[in-house]
Amino acid sequence: MFTTQPFDDDKLREECGIFGVSGADGAAALVALGLHALQHRGQEAAGICSWDGAMFHTQRAQGHVAGNFDRPEVIESLPGATACGHVRYSTTGETSNRNIQPLYAELASGGFAVAHNGNLSNAMRLRKDLVRTGSIFQSTSDTEVIIHLVATSNYRTLLDRFIDALKQVEGAYSLICMTPEGMIACRDPLGIRPLVMGKLGDAYIFASETVALDVVGAEFVREVEPGELVIVSNGELRSIRPFAPLSPRPCIFEWVYFSRPDSISEDRSVYSVRKAIGAELAQENPVEADLVIPVPDSGVPAAIGYAQASGIPFELGIIRSHYVGRTFIQPGDKVRHLGVKLKHNANRKLIEGKRIVLVDDSIVRGTTSLKIVQMMRDAGAAEVHMRIASPPTRHSCFYGVDTPERAKLLAAKLDLGGMTDYIQADSLAFISIDGLYRALGEANRTSVRPKYCDACFTGDYPTPLTDQDETSSVDQLAVLAERVG
Amino acid sequence: MFTTQPFDDDKLREECGIFGVSGADGAAALVALGLHALQHRGQEAAGICSWDGAMFHTQRAQGHVAGNFDRPEVIESLPGATACGHVRYSTTGETSNRNIQPLYAELASGGFAVAHNGNLSNAMRLRKDLVRTGSIFQSTSDTEVIIHLVATSNYRTLLDRFIDALKQVEGAYSLICMTPEGMIACRDPLGIRPLVMGKLGDAYIFASETVALDVVGAEFVREVEPGELVIVSNGELRSIRPFAPLSPRPCIFEWVYFSRPDSISEDRSVYSVRKAIGAELAQENPVEADLVIPVPDSGVPAAIGYAQASGIPFELGIIRSHYVGRTFIQPGDKVRHLGVKLKHNANRKLIEGKRIVLVDDSIVRGTTSLKIVQMMRDAGAAEVHMRIASPPTRHSCFYGVDTPERAKLLAAKLDLGGMTDYIQADSLAFISIDGLYRALGEANRTSVRPKYCDACFTGDYPTPLTDQDETSSVDQLAVLAERVG
Amino acid sequence: MFTTQPFDDDKLREECGIFGVSGADGAAALVALGLHALQHRGQEAAGICSWDGAMFHTQRAQGHVAGNFDRPEVIESLPGATACGHVRYSTTGETSNRNIQPLYAELASGGFAVAHNGNLSNAMRLRKDLVRTGSIFQSTSDTEVIIHLVATSNYRTLLDRFIDALKQVEGAYSLICMTPEGMIACRDPLGIRPLVMGKLGDAYIFASETVALDVVGAEFVREVEPGELVIVSNGELRSIRPFAPLSPRPCIFEWVYFSRPDSISEDRSVYSVRKAIGAELAQENPVEADLVIPVPDSGVPAAIGYAQASGIPFELGIIRSHYVGRTFIQPGDKVRHLGVKLKHNANRKLIEGKRIVLVDDSIVRGTTSLKIVQMMRDAGAAEVHMRIASPPTRHSCFYGVDTPERAKLLAAKLDLGGMTDYIQADSLAFISIDGLYRALGEANRTSVRPKYCDACFTGDYPTPLTDQDETSSVDQLAVLAERVG
Amino acid sequence: MFTTQPFDDDKLREECGIFGVSGADGAAALVALGLHALQHRGQEAAGICSWDGAMFHTQRAQGHVAGNFDRPEVIESLPGATACGHVRYSTTGETSNRNIQPLYAELASGGFAVAHNGNLSNAMRLRKDLVRTGSIFQSTSDTEVIIHLVATSNYRTLLDRFIDALKQVEGAYSLICMTPEGMIACRDPLGIRPLVMGKLGDAYIFASETVALDVVGAEFVREVEPGELVIVSNGELRSIRPFAPLSPRPCIFEWVYFSRPDSISEDRSVYSVRKAIGAELAQENPVEADLVIPVPDSGVPAAIGYAQASGIPFELGIIRSHYVGRTFIQPGDKVRHLGVKLKHNANRKLIEGKRIVLVDDSIVRGTTSLKIVQMMRDAGAAEVHMRIASPPTRHSCFYGVDTPERAKLLAAKLDLGGMTDYIQADSLAFISIDGLYRALGEANRTSVRPKYCDACFTGDYPTPLTDQDETSSVDQLAVLAERVG
Repeated sequence: MFTTQPFDDDKLREECGIFGVSGADGAAALVALGLHALQHRGQEAAGICSWDGAMFHTQRAQGHVAGNFDRPEVIESLPGATACGHVRYSTTGETSNRNIQPLYAELASGGFAVAHNGNLSNAMRLRKDLVRTGSIFQSTSDTEVIIHLVATSNYRTLLDRFIDALKQVEGAYSLICMTPEGMIACRDPLGIRPLVMGKLGDAYIFASETVALDVVGAEFVREVEPGELVIVSNGELRSIRPFAPLSPRPCIFEWVYFSRPDSISEDRSVYSVRKAIGAELAQENPVEADLVIPVPDSGVPAAIGYAQASGIPFELGIIRSHYVGRTFIQPGDKVRHLGVKLKHNANRKLIEGKRIVLVDDSIVRGTTSLKIVQMMRDAGAAEVHMRIASPPTRHSCFYGVDTPERAKLLAAKLDLGGMTDYIQADSLAFISIDGLYRALGEANRTSVRPKYCDACFTGDYPTPLTDQDETSSVDQLAVLAERVG
Repeated sequence: MFTTQPFDDDKLREECGIFGVSGADGAAALVALGLHALQHRGQEAAGICSWDGAMFHTQRAQGHVAGNFDRPEVIESLPGATACGHVRYSTTGETSNRNIQPLYAELASGGFAVAHNGNLSNAMRLRKDLVRTGSIFQSTSDTEVIIHLVATSNYRTLLDRFIDALKQVEGAYSLICMTPEGMIACRDPLGIRPLVMGKLGDAYIFASETVALDVVGAEFVREVEPGELVIVSNGELRSIRPFAPLSPRPCIFEWVYFSRPDSISEDRSVYSVRKAIGAELAQENPVEADLVIPVPDSGVPAAIGYAQASGIPFELGIIRSHYVGRTFIQPGDKVRHLGVKLKHNANRKLIEGKRIVLVDDSIVRGTTSLKIVQMMRDAGAAEVHMRIASPPTRHSCFYGVDTPERAKLLAAKLDLGGMTDYIQADSLAFISIDGLYRALGEANRTSVRPKYCDACFTGDYPTPLTDQDETSSVDQLAVLAERVG
Repeated sequence: MFTTQPFDDDKLREECGIFGVSGADGAAALVALGLHALQHRGQEAAGICSWDGAMFHTQRAQGHVAGNFDRPEVIESLPGATACGHVRYSTTGETSNRNIQPLYAELASGGFAVAHNGNLSNAMRLRKDLVRTGSIFQSTSDTEVIIHLVATSNYRTLLDRFIDALKQVEGAYSLICMTPEGMIACRDPLGIRPLVMGKLGDAYIFASETVALDVVGAEFVREVEPGELVIVSNGELRSIRPFAPLSPRPCIFEWVYFSRPDSISEDRSVYSVRKAIGAELAQENPVEADLVIPVPDSGVPAAIGYAQASGIPFELGIIRSHYVGRTFIQPGDKVRHLGVKLKHNANRKLIEGKRIVLVDDSIVRGTTSLKIVQMMRDAGAAEVHMRIASPPTRHSCFYGVDTPERAKLLAAKLDLGGMTDYIQADSLAFISIDGLYRALGEANRTSVRPKYCDACFTGDYPTPLTDQDETSSVDQLAVLAERVG
Repeated sequence: MFTTQPFDDDKLREECGIFGVSGADGAAALVALGLHALQHRGQEAAGICSWDGAMFHTQRAQGHVAGNFDRPEVIESLPGATACGHVRYSTTGETSNRNIQPLYAELASGGFAVAHNGNLSNAMRLRKDLVRTGSIFQSTSDTEVIIHLVATSNYRTLLDRFIDALKQVEGAYSLICMTPEGMIACRDPLGIRPLVMGKLGDAYIFASETVALDVVGAEFVREVEPGELVIVSNGELRSIRPFAPLSPRPCIFEWVYFSRPDSISEDRSVYSVRKAIGAELAQENPVEADLVIPVPDSGVPAAIGYAQASGIPFELGIIRSHYVGRTFIQPGDKVRHLGVKLKHNANRKLIEGKRIVLVDDSIVRGTTSLKIVQMMRDAGAAEVHMRIASPPTRHSCFYGVDTPERAKLLAAKLDLGGMTDYIQADSLAFISIDGLYRALGEANRTSVRPKYCDACFTGDYPTPLTDQDETSSVDQLAVLAERVG
């Protein structure tokens, strides 16, 4: 089987995007638009939950937002002025609808819906404790732990129960919750995953990225701050900070790959930061060459930055098809061994005889870097120099990003020479971690209180990893996941 | 309803792409790959017909090649070493499967399948004559006329009957036909629509563009020449030229927009020609500005050419979403009047306060040029200068391209000043027809024997337009199309 | 695999039912109801064609009328006061939509639609001649021959062309045709297949059986007579008889099995005739027994007649499930050899120790008679006597009934003793052909001009069998059918 | 809209059937067959859960068993030698899959699956208590209460927890449960709903009715007794009786309508009991008439009994179509007012001028009795006498039968004269409650310890009705059901 997504197969995957609206008629339609703009954060499934003042309504679907939540009958089945939604990239083979968020439960205090971006690093430990006292789980999602902690909390008000629950969890979470009383948006104390706040008329909007505010015409207000709970009830907004303050550690990979280039964070566009990374990369790792060629589409901004800094012309040497397929069958032996390319094609006339600089955002397993270098050579490139707009990815993420196990990360197995040989490039260079911090406007990285969570590059995890440490629990999770199917 | 395809809505549409394989086991799998690479030439429907030495097999489907012809059970139902296929852009509302090609008929001589790229300009006249003598049409496609002309021809051999049929039709046609004896590929005497020939091992491949050869790993051999019939039978290829020779007039719009940038024609990549058009455009129509911004994705190569020629930096000022939807419902009045953009978003931080040159390939109705200029202004652009990489489109095409009726073409209604006002740009300029010919490596256009069919720009149609002249027949076609539903 | 239809598998199959309405608003809705009432005549596919005064509209679907033509959007797509429809039992594996009737063609005179119940016995011969002169067939249906004969006829008016066509075909046909001028209903000169006429207000209705008049509330007027063409145009009805008169030979098997018991023909209900057949069967073939048990559901009326004539009580000894499935998988070896019965179950407490008379309408292959006798023995029956309400079925039908090839007909292979042994009954008896005629109110059958077509019992075919005689053409049909797929 | 199910619309509905297999390879295939045989007990949805020694597997589907659980890929996804299943008739509009049984939960002791036939009359009260202490419900089903009671029980072993749960519930329940240790089948102390036990080789089978044993070839062993828990573990069967003994009160309506006629209970076939009811009805309520006509299909056995006892001939006066549709659209005003009958048709020739006795099993709302009397009169019946094989249905059932609210029960609103007038019959008579008991082989009913639960006729409910008494909770259930959607 040939896939049309050879280059996308070797990326880290953001697992989720979330979007919430409080106080706008037809809120679900806005959520659908917002989720569509966040589709790059999760393509496997989507869900929306709305509250019409009397009842909650939920729709979930495998697949994209478009094709499901652009159908009028679906949106009309989600009435109300408050709604939240979720797009999900599922890491396991689970095709069940049970894990599609927002999750919803009937508590004694009424309905409670949660959309979660992130991952709890002690979810298995908490789950085992809860099951032992009689809680029955509906899903294999770590998010459900939060709901059961709220349901069984000894505090009286829902807000106190919710804070009680959050104080028991560790890891990364940006949450949008709905109750009959209103909407709660919050971020974990380190602010590992993003969450921004906007305004559309009188309505409040929460979203993983600013592009989702743009699509509905909302004005960006500010980020939800690390450790902050923002509560919207009866049109009033209030903020509480129940946690001891910590230095934030937002995910650095949002800048490298996850966020859309037109999103804005810390008053900079992601596009301009990626260009700055490309420029920094050119300065750290110059090379004599004729053309700078981006690996489409994620390498484009860094490639433009590299080209502008180096003076080497930027050219489209790889053309990407807009039409996606999955599994064209193999048309016989003769073709099997040819470099069949369904989604990308070399711009042969351009490349022939040229020394080229290929710019990509990252290398994960390295399998597709190998293929793309080969594609350039097949098209007649004289030299192929690979430049990577992030440091070597050497560690797994446990905060809501789908990373292969460490043993499959190319940079965890090989040194620079080994990697260069593996992908068969004439040269290979990564931006340094300090260079990356500089491109982000910082001084060099400091090992004490670095400004970002960069554990995938450095192995410096900002929270405990309880479930990882209780190794047996990992296996147990696998069993659980399979059992329920 | 909001569509995510606002900018694509205002393009001319190639109506078809064709692909054929003679002499490779599992031919249908190759055809599926080839059609996938030609998907940009027709997205509404696709079909493949195969011949296994004893029987013909056909599969047709609404929608893309991927999703239909990447399913193993579909390809396995198309056995044999000979196969051809077709992608179609349907101009009318006809959702019926009857018009999906390849068309197939049982003639007295055996099965006969045809895949057609182009349009016959006397199809209605011929159809009326055929129906009068008892021919029964299955489709509203002009292609079926060819089959009935073959079936009722007084010649004896199938080849003579086929040539007899071709001599009666006028207009544009690149055809791939299958009979139990072999495959016939041919182009009309003017070569209006493209058709290339390749080789994959011992097998012969025919395709609308070279990118479809690339995807199956076939080697480009040469173009099928205008007026040439190439016949492959029992692994032997022969060529006949039954028509009086004419100066070719290939479609110039293939260079401007239809063909993929990585296709190669006349030994030049389409990408490099489009860059040359952009450079010529910069020389003819310079402007003081800070950024050159392509209208994605079709304006990118010309924008790179414009930037390189003018020295103004190339930047991605408009970000395009990869996720396509159709009809998100309107989320209430407040949002309706906001510039909701589902597929494109301005890179606001980049554009703010800048003088920008927008580069697009063509203007058809002008409606989306207006929207995109507005999107730039909303993002804070100081000046917006629109540059178009083709001359004003003033005339309809009758050779297989979906053009709006003349009254809807902006350039047929307004002069340059009027158009500039309409799209609300600070300036607007088109490349001249001579400039376009120069970018293509010609001297200026000559009104006698121009090298291309450029009727959409000049109104100079290279064939009679019989059906257009018999005005009543046009209405009748509409009636026919509707009747059969 | 187990099927839930073990007893239905061994029946002759009527291949079609037809229904037409001329002159009632929303005609298609009436046709849908009528076809639903005729569903027993063809369960594989259905189609409706309507004429709204300006255009023809057609919908075809695999499967039942319910589930397809009870959907409002389907009926609304079939506007107009004239419509006809067809239910089809397809004899081959062809799943293509091409063969679903009504067939439709654009002739020089305008649109022409045909729904056909019956089978032409010289279709292959005519088809070959037509293809030779350039006609292109869309389907493998014999019905399409009629359309091409009309299209290529040398007569001028459509009616003359239609009669010209009918004069060239041989075999069985009841037809409902639609043209822009009106509706034509006709029956072949022998009236082999049924067709009745009714009235609903000012509208004329045509149907295969009177039950379809009942369902729409129409009043039965009379049968369309053998060799008669009834033409409805502008609300006026006229009748013409273009054929030399012949003694009619309507199908006798309609009385035995095909027609619904609540249909009325020749002023008798089919139910009462079947009871009379059962009574005659009891007189011809009495037996000492405790219970008369019908093979459900088709054996019920004859069993009631048998019980009333013999004085043996009628009891439901076999219970039939209403829920139909196709292919439950085999649940392991232990069960495979047990008599798993998904659709029928013996009423064990009733049967235990009893001498039973099983009454069925016919025996085709005999495979299910064997199973049902076995089921009775397993339930403890002391004796099992099988009585069949038709003579032995020894010959194939070529007039629109799906019969197995002769070699598979039990009665063509074995004498009565052999059949009794095969099905393992204590005794087996069939009604005599004379008994059957008597139950129908006739004197005994006369070999000269018998009143019915009873070829399946007697081998006395009332028309030539041209295609059967030209043996090679039969094989060619098979090839054609497969080729086109 | 016309429905083809006019007569079935006015029946009480059994809400469930259950089937379990312990100890047979490919258990799920047997369960599929068993559920198919129990399809009449619930047509809206079905589910199967299997245990393969390591994992539980579950499949649920809207619709019939056939069409879902006859697909090999579905059965193959349910491996293991232990499996249970459920067919469901859903009383509300809930289309969600959440309520399809068997329900499954991961408890601290491992997986736990439950299939439930019946209804708990204190489920709302228990649910409110459980939610208050933190239990989160997944469904609106009363069955889930049992699972949460098990999960939160303070006992240690699963069996003790299960008994603890059962002691808290009231109402009717026949349950089949699965745990990693084995299968538990049990009936409530009154044995209101049925449950039988069979053997197939070494495997134990449990089923709602004996017909489901027949279909898999299993041997009937005995009923599971009221108040008994039968536990199968490692191939060993043991029985425990944790409840104080009570006089059983099995549902009398199983004999009247719910059970299939070929099921056997208390050593009598349901068919023979229904015939006895018909005979008793004839003796209690004789009438001078020409024909006894059953309302198909449920009235047939009682009609045969009536005919045999009265000497009036049994005839099929109403023919039922086998082809079911839902909502044919109304074909215009002319037809709307006609008695369109899609599923039943009068056998007009038989009925014309005759005095007929119509025999039906019960009258619920009376709407369809009215229609069927009218249908007989339209067909020309001289007199129509309606005889009902059960006493007047005057009370709702709260034990797992879908009854309309009391205000809609014809017999709760009108006396015999009023009912006769309403349905426009010449006479109407019901069997007496004593006559019904006699037909069941009892002496007359005694008001102390009657042998059956006959609350629908007498209002004598054998258990408390806690949720009914707490009226507010009823409304709350409705809200809950809607909220979760």
